[in-house]
Amino acid sequence: MKIGFIGLGIMGAPMVGHLINAGHDLFVHSRSGLPSSLATQPLTVCDSARQVALQAEVIILMLPDTPDVGEVLFGAGGVAEAELSGKTIVDMSSISPLETKQYASRIEKLGGYYLDAPVSGGEVGAKAGTLSIMVGGPLAVFEQLLPVLQLMGKNITRVGENGDGQTAKVANQMIVALTIEAVGEALLFAARAGADPAKVRQALLGGFASSKILEVHGERMVKRAFDPGFRISLHQKDLNLALSSAQKMALALPATALAQQLFNSCVAQGGAAWDHSAMVRALEQLSDFAIPAQ
Amino acid sequence: MKIGFIGLGIMGAPMVGHLINAGHDLFVHSRSGLPSSLATQPLTVCDSARQVALQAEVIILMLPDTPDVGEVLFGAGGVAEAELSGKTIVDMSSISPLETKQYASRIEKLGGYYLDAPVSGGEVGAKAGTLSIMVGGPLAVFEQLLPVLQLMGKNITRVGENGDGQTAKVANQMIVALTIEAVGEALLFAARAGADPAKVRQALLGGFASSKILEVHGERMVKRAFDPGFRISLHQKDLNLALSSAQKMALALPATALAQQLFNSCVAQGGAAWDHSAMVRALEQLSDFAIPAQ
Repeated sequence: MKIGFIGLGIMGAPMVGHLINAGHDLFVHSRSGLPSSLATQPLTVCDSARQVALQAEVIILMLPDTPDVGEVLFGAGGVAEAELSGKTIVDMSSISPLETKQYASRIEKLGGYYLDAPVSGGEVGAKAGTLSIMVGGPLAVFEQLLPVLQLMGKNITRVGENGDGQTAKVANQMIVALTIEAVGEALLFAARAGADPAKVRQALLGGFASSKILEVHGERMVKRAFDPGFRISLHQKDLNLALSSAQKMALALPATALAQQLFNSCVAQGGAAWDHSAMVRALEQLSDFAIPAQ
Repeated sequence: MKIGFIGLGIMGAPMVGHLINAGHDLFVHSRSGLPSSLATQPLTVCDSARQVALQAEVIILMLPDTPDVGEVLFGAGGVAEAELSGKTIVDMSSISPLETKQYASRIEKLGGYYLDAPVSGGEVGAKAGTLSIMVGGPLAVFEQLLPVLQLMGKNITRVGENGDGQTAKVANQMIVALTIEAVGEALLFAARAGADPAKVRQALLGGFASSKILEVHGERMVKRAFDPGFRISLHQKDLNLALSSAQKMALALPATALAQQLFNSCVAQGGAAWDHSAMVRALEQLSDFAIPAQ
């Protein structure tokens, strides 16, 4: 199949590799040029998103944020300048659910199909082809594209109609941030009360307090291992999607708002590139007391 | 062994049953009299906590809150009026970690031993003998009492010294409350954005957002199944332990404080006896929008 791919960053580049390995013809475009990892691969480099859309049947986007997707789709030299009848746009970026519904509607009016298909699993998942993919869009389009998605991910769920994939991704990132906050407050409390937070974490695993976050991020807090992982600056972008969407929908999200403020405190401490488990450092800063290094 | 048991509520009564079934001699006291479930059991009813402590080698407490434990131990007709040399107090109530350290110290000065051993698992776990027990106290005393604790629980961890068992229990309840808040905000966001929260929950299970709470309490939110379970009024008591201990230690717990406020909102709606997953109703009240019943 002729597949277009726009956005060749740390996520996009290895995903393109999987598609080429499966025998597809790739037409790629990146504002920052071809990454060295793809330099010797058999693919066609295009000057613009429009050139990609002219040649490919399926056009995948993997871009940083909502305005980037809008620009690539509808800006000068964008995808929408090509004839889109029967072609499918698959936006695998993590962007606004509300804007996504509008983008999908505009693409459909131009004769194209649209799936939002954001991922979780990060660079490791992109390289291993084991991303979780949360999909929104028409069932028939999802089923047609599933074999392509399966080249890049393992746990692939159609959540619902257009926008619902992005909504699930935002919900995922909210729960992750707020559970980090939960584990952070609890382990800090335990340490401040004189208990060994490593033993408290151990005692709580298996009960109702147990979670992936207590397991993985709780251990990072106890071991003071804050190299990313997943950077605070990226998680802040995801919480912005939650909070700006919530504002547009008049929805109050007090704990999500608080988590974003704690991330702000981490950035104030120079921690934009810390792993998100370092949210505990904002809590520690508040009380001038830190979990002791083990 | 001669075992005393003080506090015969919905938790204490079935725990006493397990001890009798194992062949121990029970000496019990309850301010509200003997419950009907124990009426035909072979046990000795005592008029006071002092009478229990005079006759038993091990004295187990299962009481509502910190002042109750203080009164039973050190009030008129209390445990401390008996000769305590070589006897062990096992406080299985969920009470303040800071007061617990003082109680333990006073009991030791009187020649006794002390374990704090709060439980999780609720009435169901008490009846089945499958409680999780988090223990604080000297290792030798823990090892001596372990066979008795194993009659009432399955997952039994010595967290550290006196108070550390209570600290672990408080940390557990903080994480549970704050993860309920996380799941509540995320599923409410999903529903408000037009997605099916049941499908979003399903898509998120297995990834980094997964937890016991997303599994069990997330399903309750989607199915609007708010019969307890674990009552909001009981969880408020646990968060009070966290917040009052934190104030004494000058520790800031912003998310725990917020969770308590949301529980307050549930109580304002008449929900003191709702299951704690109904915290989502406080979030729904804030935005005048509820997850639709499925």
